[in-house]
Amino acid sequence: MLRAIHYVARSACVQMSLGGGTRTLSQSVWKCQASQVPSTLWKLGRLNHVAIATPNLEASTALYRDVMGAQVSQPEDLPEHGVTTVFVTLDNTKLELLYPLGNNSPIQNFLDKNKSGGLHHVCIEVDNIQAAMEEVKAHKVRCLSKEPRIGAHGKPVVFLHPKDCAGVLVELEEA
Amino acid sequence: MLRAIHYVARSACVQMSLGGGTRTLSQSVWKCQASQVPSTLWKLGRLNHVAIATPNLEASTALYRDVMGAQVSQPEDLPEHGVTTVFVTLDNTKLELLYPLGNNSPIQNFLDKNKSGGLHHVCIEVDNIQAAMEEVKAHKVRCLSKEPRIGAHGKPVVFLHPKDCAGVLVELEEA
Repeated sequence: MLRAIHYVARSACVQMSLGGGTRTLSQSVWKCQASQVPSTLWKLGRLNHVAIATPNLEASTALYRDVMGAQVSQPEDLPEHGVTTVFVTLDNTKLELLYPLGNNSPIQNFLDKNKSGGLHHVCIEVDNIQAAMEEVKAHKVRCLSKEPRIGAHGKPVVFLHPKDCAGVLVELEEA
Repeated sequence: MLRAIHYVARSACVQMSLGGGTRTLSQSVWKCQASQVPSTLWKLGRLNHVAIATPNLEASTALYRDVMGAQVSQPEDLPEHGVTTVFVTLDNTKLELLYPLGNNSPIQNFLDKNKSGGLHHVCIEVDNIQAAMEEVKAHKVRCLSKEPRIGAHGKPVVFLHPKDCAGVLVELEEA
């Protein structure tokens, strides 16, 4: 029963937004107070990682390891994801250095536009990715795949459209 | 004595780099193993926040509050920093939404180039900002101010040049 009430509260919020003729997040959503009722369907968790695309994996690894004194992993090739990754361990989360692997790397386009590299995406954990996808889609936030995919860490992930997230590529990962 | 040994170890690493004629981080730094000796002069800490510049603070706040269900702060104007900020609380760190305030906002140039907004910088804590600045400068990583400044949270901060940090604007904050 509690679940039903919370779900109705969130749905009402969506209807307010749609009823106001908004096509994207807007003032009407901003004023919606429904989120003050905590959702029991899914919960946002910790920041899993910040991904940094780099044109020089060795130099970027050296920066965090030799200059900053952080612990870094060995480079790992992930051919199915088109990247080589190095993880930089911080006290509360990690940085994920991404370097293109193969001819169709999903980060090559980003590096073509950002020659020095740069911040590529943030990954936030959720406890129920299906419920999270339904909710963001109901709020007109586009998902970049119809279903969750298995991400680089072997867990279900979905990416949200940057234009619906303040220009930021947001990855949700079921922890 | 232990401090002295560690300092020498790190200095040797720098000299290797300089001796090789490198002007920026390079293969020679990559191969330097001195960082395996933990520094006692300063220590990298947690990721304090990920900053996101947005052209629509209300919509971006609504995204994280109403769609994602995150706790968000009230907007706060920081005239001396040229931004209005909203903090999004995640379990282990926070996102800092930045919106330009005044005529000389330091993020206006970024938003002119990134109309939808985007990931602006990462802020990592250090326990001794002066020692951290000395070390990064010794490795030819440029600091954007000669001395630490008081940042948006009232603590000493310094920004590192993105071109020396894999295209990423990195803020170090003394926690």
